[in-house]
Parts: sequence; structure tokens; C-alpha cells
Amino acid sequence: MIQCNGRGKEVLESENKGEVIVRFTDQATAFHDVKRAIVPGKGAVINAISIRVFERLEQNGIKTHFIKKLNHCEQLCHEVEMISLNVVVRNVVSGSMAKRLGVQEGYVPEAPVYEIFYKNLDIANPLINEDHALALGIATADELTMIREQALKINEILKPFFADIDINLVDFKIEFGRNRKGELLLADEISPDKSRLWDIKTGEQLDKDHFSRDLGDVKEAYEKILMRLVSKESN
Amino acid sequence: MIQCNGRGKEVLESENKGEVIVRFTDQATAFHDVKRAIVPGKGAVINAISIRVFERLEQNGIKTHFIKKLNHCEQLCHEVEMISLNVVVRNVVSGSMAKRLGVQEGYVPEAPVYEIFYKNLDIANPLINEDHALALGIATADELTMIREQALKINEILKPFFADIDINLVDFKIEFGRNRKGELLLADEISPDKSRLWDIKTGEQLDKDHFSRDLGDVKEAYEKILMRLVSKESN
Repeated sequence: MIQCNGRGKEVLESENKGEVIVRFTDQATAFHDVKRAIVPGKGAVINAISIRVFERLEQNGIKTHFIKKLNHCEQLCHEVEMISLNVVVRNVVSGSMAKRLGVQEGYVPEAPVYEIFYKNLDIANPLINEDHALALGIATADELTMIREQALKINEILKPFFADIDINLVDFKIEFGRNRKGELLLADEISPDKSRLWDIKTGEQLDKDHFSRDLGDVKEAYEKILMRLVSKESN
Repeated sequence: MIQCNGRGKEVLESENKGEVIVRFTDQATAFHDVKRAIVPGKGAVINAISIRVFERLEQNGIKTHFIKKLNHCEQLCHEVEMISLNVVVRNVVSGSMAKRLGVQEGYVPEAPVYEIFYKNLDIANPLINEDHALALGIATADELTMIREQALKINEILKPFFADIDINLVDFKIEFGRNRKGELLLADEISPDKSRLWDIKTGEQLDKDHFSRDLGDVKEAYEKILMRLVSKESN
């Protein structure tokens, strides 16, 4: 098994100017980092899934920070200044939205629901709206418009991408950054660590809830996704 | 002193079809109705202030439910189906926004901040965004656009209205309803019970925080506002 040591996701210096190495480690966290564990093999699986997702997005016109895979644990990325927003798109109501709005988990709204959260662990990453983001100086009005457009476009690209391997894209969390020219790039990762991915046929949760809800071996769940993606590629 | 008995704000039947009587009582509440008290005279003061605000808004093209004053405690209004949103506009950061975003009270953002909250006391009226409102079926996309436009226009009308009597309109909460034709009308009230009104010169809070923060005689604070409005009228 390929192990990726380190704390959380690490961003390391690269030899190339304007580029960084993103290292996916085996550390798992949940509940705003309160719950932590080492899951050997997780880093490599997340790296492999996230690379495949970013490649698909690039093919469909989404600008991302991803440049290339370096090794099982690491990828080379454009250096960006991160925007302090967790951006969420939901196709099915689950998790914090169900709790906050008193809606049954599993409810499918007519249109996807877009949310932004202020990345600030001291105040538990609160839900905000775009006026709050402007007042806090997190992003410009133009950037906020683009972030929403990009997030909803990413959803339209990834729904069929996952449906093709019998997975329902329930929701996902993404982050954006600015490169040196000030251009907006999708950054961070898209992976079962930051999304809800339910098996279409069995309803099994092949995602972060597997870990936070103690549903068993999280690496095994993540590997199911990777295996299905890989098997599609060799078809 | 004019007393207005009753529990909270009452909506009573009128002899006229499609119209209702709104009765302002002396009951004061705070913290999602957890704190309650009777403040003799408050109902009449709130009624008098709210009438003057709604008249000013109507003169400036805002459609409201207000028809006319009936007596010291009551006004005649168009009957509406209430929309389950608390709509807030903030010119200065205070209260729940300061707490939620970790921002200093008194911070003045470049542009007013618009917020909507889902009116549902069981889940403590949570902050939501427009996608949530659509998913919950609270209002249509067109209605949500109009509500935002109207709320920001109301802010532009009321800032100088209150500045004229040396009061800083810090924030206010409003509600909208639909009449029988489905038209959007500003409903409920605009008053120091639902806004933050700070004396421009002294900074004194002449509003609901006077009650919820136990700052003394709330009726006296509200009366200061009414007296200033009345004295402007007789000039």
C-alpha cells in the first residue's frame, strides 16, 4: 500500500516559479478538524480521484490550478492566493443544510442549491451571502459572480461524470484562488473527502460521511470510486 | 397614557372584504420571543411611528399593506398572505451579523448588506440565501428579485428620513406579503421594535436593543423618535 505521510494537505515549494507541489496525506479529519485519524492509503486514492476530476473539468473549459501528477501522493499546481470561501453545490439536501433548514435528508430541490461559507475556523465557517463576502472584503462582485457561474458549471460537468460510474453527486465543496495575473482558478481538490457521493443502486455513502459517521473503512469506500473510474478508462 | 391590550401584534377581521385590522399591543418580546414583558404605551407609539414610515414609503413609490390609521392602537391594512422571510438591510454591522462573522459592532461596510432569514421559530429563524428560499418554496425567483430591490430602495428612502431627525438607520427588518392579485406588498411594520436606530449625536440606542439589553425604559426611547418625527411635521 502506498502511504502518504504528513499533516493534512500540504502545499510545498516547487523548483518552478509560480508553481507549488500539493501533497495529499493519509490524515483524515471531520467536524471542523475536531475528529482526526490516520487512514493509510487515503492520500494516494484522493490524489488519483482528484486528478481525474480536474482533468475532466479542464477538458470542459474550467480553469484549474492542476498542472500534472508528480507521484502517488503529489501533484504539481499553479500557485494561487486562496479565496477564503468554501463553495458548496447541492443536488440533494443532506448534512448541514438539512439540519439548518429543518428539511428531510434526501430531498431533491428543483434546482441545485449554491452556498458560500466564510472560511474562518474561529467562528466555525459560517454560511454567508454575497453581500457578506463583499463587506468582509473576501472577493470582488465580479469574482463572486464568476465563482457562482463556475461552481454551477462544474456541477453540470460532474453529475454525468459520476452518474457514468453509478454514483449520485449529492453535493461537493470547492475552493478558488487567484493566480499572479489575478485570474480565478479552481484550486484545492474535488474528492470524496469534500463531497457526498452515493451509490446510485445501493445508496451506500462512498464519501466523507463514511468517516465522520463511523460507517467503516473509509479507504475501501474511496477505492470503490477510484476502481470504477479506472475501469471506465480501460473500456 | 394610551394602553393597547393584547398578545403580540394582532391581525383582526375587518368589515371590509380583503382588509384587516392590525392591532399593536403593549407586549414586548426579545430573543425569539423568549423574553416577554408588558410595556404600557408601547403599542400606541409603535403604531404612530410605523404609520409615518409607511406613509413616507408610499409617497416614494413603495407599495405597502397600509391603508389608514383607525385609532391609537390600530391601523387598517390590505389582507395579504405573508411570505415566510425576515428581510434585513444593514448599514452598520451590529447584532447577529457581528457575532456570526466575527466583525466588530459599528463597522460600516461600503454597501448595505441584504439578508434573508427563514421565518421558522422551531429552527430559530436561520439565515438563508435565495437558492434556499427557492428550494423551500418560500417565494418565486421573480419575487425574490423584487424583494431585494424593494428592500434596498426602502433603505435609500429611510436613511434620509431618519437622518433628518438625527437618527442613524443602522438596520431594519421587514416582511412582505402577497395580496389577492399576487402582488407583492410591504407588510408587517417598520418601527424601533424591528430596527436599530441610533442617535447620531449621542450614539444612544433608541430601539429594540433598549429592551433586549435592559438599557432602561424602552417606551421612553421609542417616544423620543416619535416626538422628533411629530416636531418635524409641525415645522
